Amino acid sequence: MAIVVRKYGGSSVADADKIKNVARRAIEAQEEGKQVVVVVSAMGKTTDGLVKLAQQVSDEPDERELDFLLSTGEIVSCTLLAIALKAMGAKSVSLSGAQAGIKTDAVHSRARILGIDPRRIHKELDRGKIVIVAGFQGITDKMDITTLGRGGSDTTAVALAIALGADTCEIYTDVDGVYTADPRLVPEARKLDEIGYEEMLELASLGSKVMHSRAVELGEVYKMPILVASSFGNSPGTLIHGGVSMEARNKVRGIAHDLNVAKVTVVGVPDKPGVASAIFDSLAKANISVDTIVQNASIKGITDLTFTVARTDLKKAMKVIEPVVKSIKAKECVSDSKLAKVSVVGSGMQTAAGYAAMMFRALYEAGINIELITTSEIKITCIIDEAKTSDAVRALHKAFELDKGV
Amino acid sequence: MAIVVRKYGGSSVADADKIKNVARRAIEAQEEGKQVVVVVSAMGKTTDGLVKLAQQVSDEPDERELDFLLSTGEIVSCTLLAIALKAMGAKSVSLSGAQAGIKTDAVHSRARILGIDPRRIHKELDRGKIVIVAGFQGITDKMDITTLGRGGSDTTAVALAIALGADTCEIYTDVDGVYTADPRLVPEARKLDEIGYEEMLELASLGSKVMHSRAVELGEVYKMPILVASSFGNSPGTLIHGGVSMEARNKVRGIAHDLNVAKVTVVGVPDKPGVASAIFDSLAKANISVDTIVQNASIKGITDLTFTVARTDLKKAMKVIEPVVKSIKAKECVSDSKLAKVSVVGSGMQTAAGYAAMMFRALYEAGINIELITTSEIKITCIIDEAKTSDAVRALHKAFELDKGV
Repeated sequence: MAIVVRKYGGSSVADADKIKNVARRAIEAQEEGKQVVVVVSAMGKTTDGLVKLAQQVSDEPDERELDFLLSTGEIVSCTLLAIALKAMGAKSVSLSGAQAGIKTDAVHSRARILGIDPRRIHKELDRGKIVIVAGFQGITDKMDITTLGRGGSDTTAVALAIALGADTCEIYTDVDGVYTADPRLVPEARKLDEIGYEEMLELASLGSKVMHSRAVELGEVYKMPILVASSFGNSPGTLIHGGVSMEARNKVRGIAHDLNVAKVTVVGVPDKPGVASAIFDSLAKANISVDTIVQNASIKGITDLTFTVARTDLKKAMKVIEPVVKSIKAKECVSDSKLAKVSVVGSGMQTAAGYAAMMFRALYEAGINIELITTSEIKITCIIDEAKTSDAVRALHKAFELDKGV
Repeated sequence: MAIVVRKYGGSSVADADKIKNVARRAIEAQEEGKQVVVVVSAMGKTTDGLVKLAQQVSDEPDERELDFLLSTGEIVSCTLLAIALKAMGAKSVSLSGAQAGIKTDAVHSRARILGIDPRRIHKELDRGKIVIVAGFQGITDKMDITTLGRGGSDTTAVALAIALGADTCEIYTDVDGVYTADPRLVPEARKLDEIGYEEMLELASLGSKVMHSRAVELGEVYKMPILVASSFGNSPGTLIHGGVSMEARNKVRGIAHDLNVAKVTVVGVPDKPGVASAIFDSLAKANISVDTIVQNASIKGITDLTFTVARTDLKKAMKVIEPVVKSIKAKECVSDSKLAKVSVVGSGMQTAAGYAAMMFRALYEAGINIELITTSEIKITCIIDEAKTSDAVRALHKAFELDKGV
């Protein structure tokens, strides 16, 4: 019998009515002849509330204990969903990550799944039950509870779908799929029926907050098709899979943007070996992710080095590199936090000419200055003034004719 | 090294400050050279809140799921306590009932402990950790989470103390021990330094809500001394144990009272075999606990049968026995819900004469009418008008000289 794994985020199970809605949909899927596994996140803002409780007893709560504390949020939503299902006459059982057989390493707050023992889930499914699994959590070989970090429930769902041999993994959320751009910025933005894993990764990591990159990566490795759709409506959603036709369609799939961008420029850097590593080692040690890095051509042995970080990390980053700037004898270090990133994404672009030129022209014609440029195989990214973000996304969406369909 | 098991109820861990207080006391005990295990209930009204959530999705939440849901309340308080301890520099680890090795039967919502595998706790204690255990819960051999029902955390604590070979089990609560009567009714009521298990059972089940009978029974069977004391003050509390000197002290230990009493009288019952069983079978099937039962001497083959139930069960009880009253051809069935129970408790009473007479005289002199009388080996109970409860408890406390000490 075909198995389907569905995941619902916190806003989709935020109250009793929403939980009942999820329950009804699970029963419908079962009536269609499927074996149904539902993965849930904690209700609404539960996790934030638990973190606040922990902070009331400690400024830096111990991670092993915090994981165990946070894991209760998903138990609450998954038991409530099982209760709702049983009240509707369905057979159901809720399982913690541990009961569902999700084994992880012991790196608390960001554990990795080592393997899944699917026997209990299979047994419950074979008894005709709709199986509810608490997302975001697992258990170590020492029987300690871990959490998987950001996007954990998406990862749980995809990993379970793989381990159970499901046909698809369905991620239900408060948007109805992946769009060619953020519909709040571009009214003409169009929902994509399908998208490739890598394209989705670029769109997701660039700020189209539909699902977590980590889960998409996992889907890609194991070739698990992932459907992203709305928890509420009946729209068909977007299917993320590997077999997307790359030839017969618009090579640009979408325009991503990200407002959480700050730029740091180290001015007057002596151009010699070890300098870049000194700067980026210190940032890595402080756990600051660096995004775009650009180094200008060196003139007379002196160069400028620019990189971007999340705006929320800027203060910390400046503090960290100040002593490094001195030690490498650079001139100074300046920053700008009012920036945004816009990207054109599409896996067909690398084999076709002219996309970069088209992007720069569209921005130029919209009167938008480009601060930094960076490219990968499937995307072209420009860093621009934050205030111009909407204009830029709209101009690019139009220039690449994304409103016109495949 | 001596092991001590301490239990704190919901009001003792209701907020961050109270949790820190419990943490400080655990560290003190460890500094005195003890290995410390702390059992906690859910914070404040958490459990009620979770029950309400479940009732929003179902009028009759499935018990297996409800148990799993409720078990999260204790995980929250025990992880917060461990976080507080670690923030204070102590070593600590929090464990769920399952992790602590507490195995139960599969009777959800009122599971019984089948056994405890104490290896993980011993291992953590031997590493110098203060071990925090979630009360009220366990796990079945099928890896499902159960709860132990009312008084569950007390039971967890006593059972752990027994399994770990602890010297004592300490129950911390919002009263500072067991009193000769309710201090709110009798200002002269005196805290007892020690009390026998059976005396405690009579006082507890009769309404001195200090700790749950089930835990006291467990303590009695395994001869585990139980100290009841305040979470906040430093008063020495009351030690419940088996070696209480019975000879050299006042044979009456305390006056208990219970306001949750209703009386049902079946009038004109034909006095023949099977009649009582018909009535009480039907009540048992409806899960209604019957307390006192009194049958008057039969006159001309007709008798009256009176029993008491919890006031909260009266409506249900009347509904259940109405058809029985008809089928056994009794005359009618009347009830009175404005009653209370007062009891004189003391294990020395059975071997000494005159206690019953003294009780009845004290009530008579206080102008209080006795509706029903019932006696056991260690107590004498009278059912009286609810409005006279305070007068009765005060009169008995004085008559038996309980204000005068041992």
